[in-house]
Amino acid sequence: MKLYTFPAAPSPRRVHLFLAEKGLDLEQQIIDLRSGEHLVSEHLAGHPQRTVPTLELDDGTLLTESVAICRYLEERQPEPALLGTNPVERARITDADHWIEMHGLLAVMDAFRNHVRGMKDRALPGTRPVAQIPELAKRGLQRYHWFLDDFNQRLDGQAYAAGDRFSVADITALVTVDFAHSAIKIGLPEDAQAINQWYQRVCKRPAILKANSAD
Amino acid sequence: MKLYTFPAAPSPRRVHLFLAEKGLDLEQQIIDLRSGEHLVSEHLAGHPQRTVPTLELDDGTLLTESVAICRYLEERQPEPALLGTNPVERARITDADHWIEMHGLLAVMDAFRNHVRGMKDRALPGTRPVAQIPELAKRGLQRYHWFLDDFNQRLDGQAYAAGDRFSVADITALVTVDFAHSAIKIGLPEDAQAINQWYQRVCKRPAILKANSAD
Repeated sequence: MKLYTFPAAPSPRRVHLFLAEKGLDLEQQIIDLRSGEHLVSEHLAGHPQRTVPTLELDDGTLLTESVAICRYLEERQPEPALLGTNPVERARITDADHWIEMHGLLAVMDAFRNHVRGMKDRALPGTRPVAQIPELAKRGLQRYHWFLDDFNQRLDGQAYAAGDRFSVADITALVTVDFAHSAIKIGLPEDAQAINQWYQRVCKRPAILKANSAD
Repeated sequence: MKLYTFPAAPSPRRVHLFLAEKGLDLEQQIIDLRSGEHLVSEHLAGHPQRTVPTLELDDGTLLTESVAICRYLEERQPEPALLGTNPVERARITDADHWIEMHGLLAVMDAFRNHVRGMKDRALPGTRPVAQIPELAKRGLQRYHWFLDDFNQRLDGQAYAAGDRFSVADITALVTVDFAHSAIKIGLPEDAQAINQWYQRVCKRPAILKANSAD
């Protein structure tokens, strides 16, 4: 199998941190999103949106969604478990991961892609031109602040995004928070104690430290 | 366990069709979204967004994302398998389901919630007022047409959304297509042969027929 990726972008970073936590090393090919390589690369010809990360399996299947790539990698190498170890835990992790993606990551994406000059006519990932909507950038900012409030509340009384164990949901949240910081210049609110403690806890993990220093 | 739901809405319908295909009967409580019952119901007090479907597990865990609810139900009753029977199939189903949700269902939601009068200041699910963005309604329509093109292409040469076997991805797609038809009055393009054949195939399933006739 082979991973087509561009590690600096947030969705690929979800997969890269997942690989780092697993200690997995995959064959990778960088697709330079900045130069538009994804629009012409023949490796992505079977994938209409031409987004990365895309994982090509040995039978030729292309997985284009980060959640599906992580699920497949978890089955290939179950330890350490990042998607849970029993039915309730697996459900809680899927729940938290999807909630963080929809309310956090998508909010930051709306705020970023509908605002910065470099994303003109690229307000959505994919090959088709999509005009920016300034009001949607504003709404994204508002939603991200709501997400931070809600996530802080969710973390009150539990160490990690889905409970007492680190999981893929923490990776999605970390990618969201870091991307908000770098792309739309929103940090963590100082008075949001639970989320600040969570952030310190997650950033101290050896795999995250190592992956961050390699960036 | 107990399901809080409002069957007429699209996200709950994903879970109801999943239950129908499984032949599962859960304790349910209707939360009337039209009268705003979700905003005050004490059953949803532990869930900041107060959306349905919400599945309350026996240990008090609230699952608020349809994908997590379906995953938990699949573990509780594996047959008939709707999330796949081997690692590649499971990855393909997760991939297709997420792709359909992001490109199809969210597009229709944008088109609907940012346009109709009844959704004024409710452009997003949840308890917080969110103003409609007319441009986002237009973008949603455009995206849905793109989704139909891409989904038609994806179905060319395979019977179901994720391959040769019916899965949860077909349920998400059916809910999307039916909701587009009822809520934004967009049917299937007559010349899109694969998607029309798929729709007929899925609607003939006994569980879907039965669930549709009960609506």
